[in-house]
Amino acid sequence: MDKLEMRHTLLAAKARKQLTWEEIGKSIGMSPVWVASACYGMNSATPDAAKKICQVLDAEPDVAAALEAFPTKAWDEAIPQDPLIYRLYEVVGVYGETLKDVIQEKFGDGIMSAIDFSMEVDKVEDPKGDRVLLTLNGKFLPYKAW
Amino acid sequence: MDKLEMRHTLLAAKARKQLTWEEIGKSIGMSPVWVASACYGMNSATPDAAKKICQVLDAEPDVAAALEAFPTKAWDEAIPQDPLIYRLYEVVGVYGETLKDVIQEKFGDGIMSAIDFSMEVDKVEDPKGDRVLLTLNGKFLPYKAW
Amino acid sequence: MDKLEMRHTLLAAKARKQLTWEEIGKSIGMSPVWVASACYGMNSATPDAAKKICQVLDAEPDVAAALEAFPTKAWDEAIPQDPLIYRLYEVVGVYGETLKDVIQEKFGDGIMSAIDFSMEVDKVEDPKGDRVLLTLNGKFLPYKAW
Amino acid sequence: MDKLEMRHTLLAAKARKQLTWEEIGKSIGMSPVWVASACYGMNSATPDAAKKICQVLDAEPDVAAALEAFPTKAWDEAIPQDPLIYRLYEVVGVYGETLKDVIQEKFGDGIMSAIDFSMEVDKVEDPKGDRVLLTLNGKFLPYKAW
Amino acid sequence: MDKLEMRHTLLAAKARKQLTWEEIGKSIGMSPVWVASACYGMNSATPDAAKKICQVLDAEPDVAAALEAFPTKAWDEAIPQDPLIYRLYEVVGVYGETLKDVIQEKFGDGIMSAIDFSMEVDKVEDPKGDRVLLTLNGKFLPYKAW
Amino acid sequence: MDKLEMRHTLLAAKARKQLTWEEIGKSIGMSPVWVASACYGMNSATPDAAKKICQVLDAEPDVAAALEAFPTKAWDEAIPQDPLIYRLYEVVGVYGETLKDVIQEKFGDGIMSAIDFSMEVDKVEDPKGDRVLLTLNGKFLPYKAW
Amino acid sequence: MDKLEMRHTLLAAKARKQLTWEEIGKSIGMSPVWVASACYGMNSATPDAAKKICQVLDAEPDVAAALEAFPTKAWDEAIPQDPLIYRLYEVVGVYGETLKDVIQEKFGDGIMSAIDFSMEVDKVEDPKGDRVLLTLNGKFLPYKAW
Amino acid sequence: MDKLEMRHTLLAAKARKQLTWEEIGKSIGMSPVWVASACYGMNSATPDAAKKICQVLDAEPDVAAALEAFPTKAWDEAIPQDPLIYRLYEVVGVYGETLKDVIQEKFGDGIMSAIDFSMEVDKVEDPKGDRVLLTLNGKFLPYKAW
Amino acid sequence: MDKLEMRHTLLAAKARKQLTWEEIGKSIGMSPVWVASACYGMNSATPDAAKKICQVLDAEPDVAAALEAFPTKAWDEAIPQDPLIYRLYEVVGVYGETLKDVIQEKFGDGIMSAIDFSMEVDKVEDPKGDRVLLTLNGKFLPYKAW
Amino acid sequence: MDKLEMRHTLLAAKARKQLTWEEIGKSIGMSPVWVASACYGMNSATPDAAKKICQVLDAEPDVAAALEAFPTKAWDEAIPQDPLIYRLYEVVGVYGETLKDVIQEKFGDGIMSAIDFSMEVDKVEDPKGDRVLLTLNGKFLPYKAW
Repeated sequence: MDKLEMRHTLLAAKARKQLTWEEIGKSIGMSPVWVASACYGMNSATPDAAKKICQVLDAEPDVAAALEAFPTKAWDEAIPQDPLIYRLYEVVGVYGETLKDVIQEKFGDGIMSAIDFSMEVDKVEDPKGDRVLLTLNGKFLPYKAW
Repeated sequence: MDKLEMRHTLLAAKARKQLTWEEIGKSIGMSPVWVASACYGMNSATPDAAKKICQVLDAEPDVAAALEAFPTKAWDEAIPQDPLIYRLYEVVGVYGETLKDVIQEKFGDGIMSAIDFSMEVDKVEDPKGDRVLLTLNGKFLPYKAW
Repeated sequence: MDKLEMRHTLLAAKARKQLTWEEIGKSIGMSPVWVASACYGMNSATPDAAKKICQVLDAEPDVAAALEAFPTKAWDEAIPQDPLIYRLYEVVGVYGETLKDVIQEKFGDGIMSAIDFSMEVDKVEDPKGDRVLLTLNGKFLPYKAW
Repeated sequence: MDKLEMRHTLLAAKARKQLTWEEIGKSIGMSPVWVASACYGMNSATPDAAKKICQVLDAEPDVAAALEAFPTKAWDEAIPQDPLIYRLYEVVGVYGETLKDVIQEKFGDGIMSAIDFSMEVDKVEDPKGDRVLLTLNGKFLPYKAW
Repeated sequence: MDKLEMRHTLLAAKARKQLTWEEIGKSIGMSPVWVASACYGMNSATPDAAKKICQVLDAEPDVAAALEAFPTKAWDEAIPQDPLIYRLYEVVGVYGETLKDVIQEKFGDGIMSAIDFSMEVDKVEDPKGDRVLLTLNGKFLPYKAW
Repeated sequence: MDKLEMRHTLLAAKARKQLTWEEIGKSIGMSPVWVASACYGMNSATPDAAKKICQVLDAEPDVAAALEAFPTKAWDEAIPQDPLIYRLYEVVGVYGETLKDVIQEKFGDGIMSAIDFSMEVDKVEDPKGDRVLLTLNGKFLPYKAW
Repeated sequence: MDKLEMRHTLLAAKARKQLTWEEIGKSIGMSPVWVASACYGMNSATPDAAKKICQVLDAEPDVAAALEAFPTKAWDEAIPQDPLIYRLYEVVGVYGETLKDVIQEKFGDGIMSAIDFSMEVDKVEDPKGDRVLLTLNGKFLPYKAW
Repeated sequence: MDKLEMRHTLLAAKARKQLTWEEIGKSIGMSPVWVASACYGMNSATPDAAKKICQVLDAEPDVAAALEAFPTKAWDEAIPQDPLIYRLYEVVGVYGETLKDVIQEKFGDGIMSAIDFSMEVDKVEDPKGDRVLLTLNGKFLPYKAW
Repeated sequence: MDKLEMRHTLLAAKARKQLTWEEIGKSIGMSPVWVASACYGMNSATPDAAKKICQVLDAEPDVAAALEAFPTKAWDEAIPQDPLIYRLYEVVGVYGETLKDVIQEKFGDGIMSAIDFSMEVDKVEDPKGDRVLLTLNGKFLPYKAW
Repeated sequence: MDKLEMRHTLLAAKARKQLTWEEIGKSIGMSPVWVASACYGMNSATPDAAKKICQVLDAEPDVAAALEAFPTKAWDEAIPQDPLIYRLYEVVGVYGETLKDVIQEKFGDGIMSAIDFSMEVDKVEDPKGDRVLLTLNGKFLPYKAW
């Protein structure tokens, strides 16, 4: 079973059981964003996490094996088109140089890792319109001379 | 004075006065990320903020006028090349679909605004390597049928 | 049922029943452009609107579920090829800077939302050739400093 | 004098005289969007309109000649980056097929001209946030068999 | 039946009946280029023309319906690869500016319509090598100020 | 003197002397389209033609040398943006396959040369709107097996 | 039978019969490069050549018909990726301007035809490593003024 | 002196002295194509060849140094536009797969080197039109398992 | 059997037999990187190596034939997306010019062959985090004048 | 002084003093590849290293400041053109998937860092042609679930 078939199976099971990523994450002790990314096929799960996801979603063992497989990460459009995703791309375009300067001023020459990395989504209720709070947490990796 | 000349002037003044974005932000009561983005020419400042930035950086009144001008936002490479900025692009590519699903599950059909939006950079010290904490805060905009 | 299958089903039903978007829109109390975009799979419908569209077009309940699903918006060609759509792209290219200046002069620094947004198509009869009247109506979103 | 130099001259004069496109349009009896597009170098002016624009903005006769010249229309980015302009591009992407269907259902096989074309920007005040009203008015051109 | 299936059906029938576009055009009183473009799915036919094409090519009524449908025009490669088509693209590239200047000098600021448009192919016999004569005939559309 | 400087010189002289391509072509016995393309730097002139163009436009001998030089043909945008030129590109896209079939049915497998090639622009007056007549005349080059 | 199916049939037959392009070319009196390009679907064969190719490779008459059909030439990647083909692309990039100058110095303003064209591959044995000799032979086509 | 300045200097000297690449090649004992490519800045010359080229063209010692420098090879357009160079690109596109098969059938799995490589241009006079003979000569490099 | 089917067969067999590339390489006396690249379909195997790979993985003789076939090398994305592969692309971008200078300073004008080439992956254990050691070994190919 | 000016200054000084990267690296106790990349402006130097580089190359203090500045890394062509650099890109394309599999089999799911990274160039003399040995050494970064 490849990642694509795994993804269809898991998303269908999630819809059938009417579970949210929040609920699945809570029941297996992982973050909802991470669980979703694993089920979308963009991250590999440990055998334990894979087993738990399959239990929650009543999936067969070959789904667990697919969850454990190391994915080849890819996306469709170099410049995203869906408005929600485009806005994130726009933020990178508009604030990229600014973030580089502010981060490197604070940490020195280096980058924020996208591998040793986690991410959360929160909802801040607000009478003028609720707000999305997106938190990216990545290890700082300094450049090393040699 | 256009945004490009303004940017060179302000970055040179900042270097000369050895100020950080943190310090400039604090002294004018704004976030360091916003101040940096205004000085990079990617956001317009209110007359009051423009005046204060110019005071802190000893800049001439035409710099304040340039800070107040409404920018045309643009970036060089559709796919960024600098590693720090590319990692952010990669996060959007790898996690874009996941975030869309998690956010829309929480908020309904809609997007996180990149206009009614703010962003912070924090440093979390960690003996295994400090971590960059990037917080994006955008108003949720629901799609409206008509 | 995914959006693509839903779309084929609904467009086939519409053709079979010889209804126009105008008529469908009127019968369910929504704008013809919005109804068409929902049936094309580019907008989600409320449960009520989905039910009504399915009644008018004699579609099964799984079509209604597909109408309610939140779409991933995408289009084929970064630069459109069909002449009707290309002309709109050309208008954005030729008048983009002009519109930015005129809108921001009137409203301040910000954008016209494409999310809190509606659109109408009207026909203005004219002996020298009828005219298409396209009205875009989007909430103004001001940039906010932080 | 080429269109680029003309544009710099006219925009500088407009800023110096603190006039809006609205005011310039009114004083010469043309639409503000058209006047702006002519001053940006994206449309040619009749000798009479060119002369009036130069009077309002105190420009020299060679500016009038440049206003009368037929422009080569071009834009920088195949996919726009400035958020205000990108949103318009997104509207074309998201609603392109829908508009094609709704327009052709109403008018037959053909297109909305981008040449025999005009455009207006209006502000609709609204306590929940003002709205931008963009009206595109183009002649319908039917395809002709031969 | 969609345009693609229609096209396969009509091209196969044409091959089977060993007819040329010239002959089909003559027998239904339309230009061979237009008939070919309608059968390739790039133009819609009037009910009368669709019926006649189907009679000449012994096609079923659903083919006629497909001929009447309004096409979404698209082509494979932004820059064509087949040598015959590339040479036309090259002509547009090499002579584009020249044609713009010569046409606009003759007609004023405006364009040659590609909608109110027809095209013929003729063969001019020549002992040094026959020549292709391609005639494009499009309505001139002047830009209008507003 | 390179082609770019030559072009500026010749276009300025033409404007100063208020000559049309038609008139220049007639006075030197060449087609206006060819003369324009040579002055735009997209074709080389014979020494005789170069001399005549310079006489008509009062240009210096180094301009004649530049007219005789063999050009490197290039154009700015792979997909043209100016509406007049884009419409020609659209014609190639929409009718490319059709033309290939009609031409090859008439001539056999081969192409219309863009080198052994000429082109004319004519104006057909019409009360419903004048028409542009564009005639392309290229030698047919058959593929040869070997 | 389309060109793709023809190609699969002919390449399979060639493998089964363990023939080289050299041998096939010799047995039908044509160049191996031309025979290969016809079997790959990039050139049309005369009825006689098509018949002979089918005899050598024991192919059915519909394969001969497919060999006679006029191909639409296309290739996958604008910039080739396979190293053997990329090296040829690199040669065009690195030596393009040089060849243009050397050829036009020898022949005048014009091009080497890729239509009235042939090509051979030879092997030059060499103790330091055999060498590939690629000979391109194209008719010179001079530009013609008009 | 960089390669660009060197190139301008050498091409100007060559024009002034009215020498052909053929003549320069002969007088220094190298191939005209190689000499041209070195003067265009696409190959480095040995000190001896550099000195000779400078003698023939009366160039200063810093030109010789620039000829000896190792170039960074680059070209303007991923897909060439000048017709002479495009035809070569088209040959690579149309015959790429064919050449790969014919060469590898003759030599085994490997490529024709573009580094250990030479190239000649010859003119074959022909009453039906002279022909360009382009000979590419590259070392065959076999893939090696390890 | 084509390379794609071969690859699926071999990767499935490898997974079923729970062998590593290291083990397969060792058992047939070749490098693990080369074996993997041959099984992925990016290199051809000698008959002997193909036979051995098939023995180790219990594959049928047609798999061996597919392993011996000369591949057409291709990859999906001009700019890779998977993070592991992108980092290698980034290294080429960031250090490309540097490597060119350091290599050519050491070896003269020329390149490192990607054909007469091998590559190894080693693991260097390190308490601060293990390190990947990637060794590329390519023959230096000097440019030759002619 | 920006990185570009710094680079020109340092490369000119290096040429004038006839030093190799090897020698500069040795004299300041750093790797020649790293020193070259810092002088090319692709890495920042510590104050100490910057000072030493300036001593060896007799550069002014503002050059040292430029060496210490954190660079924005960028490269010209998404797909490199210079043959030496293209071969490295080709290696990434041809062996990317293979390396991903071999590395992840050895290390688990993760990547080789391009930040905590070093690189060496060695020359292996060989009578059949010297070989370039390129060693990449990057920290393995495992993906972390969260």
